[in-house]
Amino acid sequence: MNSNPFNPRTSHDEIETGLKLQPKFGHDGLISCITADADSGEVLMFSFMNAEALRMTIETGKATYYSRSRKKLWIKGEESGNVFDIREIKVDCDQDVILITVDSRAGAACHRGFRSCFYRKVNSDGTLEHTGGKRLFDPEVVYRKK
Amino acid sequence: MNSNPFNPRTSHDEIETGLKLQPKFGHDGLISCITADADSGEVLMFSFMNAEALRMTIETGKATYYSRSRKKLWIKGEESGNVFDIREIKVDCDQDVILITVDSRAGAACHRGFRSCFYRKVNSDGTLEHTGGKRLFDPEVVYRKK
Repeated sequence: MNSNPFNPRTSHDEIETGLKLQPKFGHDGLISCITADADSGEVLMFSFMNAEALRMTIETGKATYYSRSRKKLWIKGEESGNVFDIREIKVDCDQDVILITVDSRAGAACHRGFRSCFYRKVNSDGTLEHTGGKRLFDPEVVYRKK
Repeated sequence: MNSNPFNPRTSHDEIETGLKLQPKFGHDGLISCITADADSGEVLMFSFMNAEALRMTIETGKATYYSRSRKKLWIKGEESGNVFDIREIKVDCDQDVILITVDSRAGAACHRGFRSCFYRKVNSDGTLEHTGGKRLFDPEVVYRKK
């Protein structure tokens, strides 16, 4: 992994109110990232970035994450074609979470073929209910699982 | 901490396509939780729940988290009065992230007094810019910091 190109962290107040990007990466070198649809606001997925992924996302305007299972950078859409064009990148108060909003032309965010990874709601009795609409692609075709 | 009241995890396919809630808590007993405004879709904050917080959120309809800094359950709004009434609870494909949408009457989500914790955007040159509007409360009054 490349060295962290971002500013070293300064004081609590400077981190929360200042205008310097000082992302806090965990012991594993990763920061949480929420991806939402720039137009509807719908939350599409939750993933992680390392410093290189965040730098690339800022510089290229294409959402780039770090895949914990594959242990490598992951340019969203590399395999499925559903590239995420960045509309806006935000950081939370203590700069340990990134929120990116992406262009709504992007198809399915979820590897299961749904628009959003959050395609099931929790009912009050603890059962789940599908709310994610139709699948936009068949994962077994796109990812050639079979 | 109480024992986990949720189902034990079953197969990968059952977790991703089934209709049983099988949340995956980390080694620290916590699951990531995204909170968004039910009407606008705006992401308000990112926090954590333990099994008890998730159970209480489902049962009471009030957002309840687990505070890592205070090491205890945290009913949102206990101190500030900005209770979050739940509109919908969702779970992601592999059931390791919870998404709750909350009633938009809720005031500021952020301890800094802003509507959302994501009150700064990252510019392409890596500087930050305030985009969060006016503060809805003064944290030093609400939390009596001074």
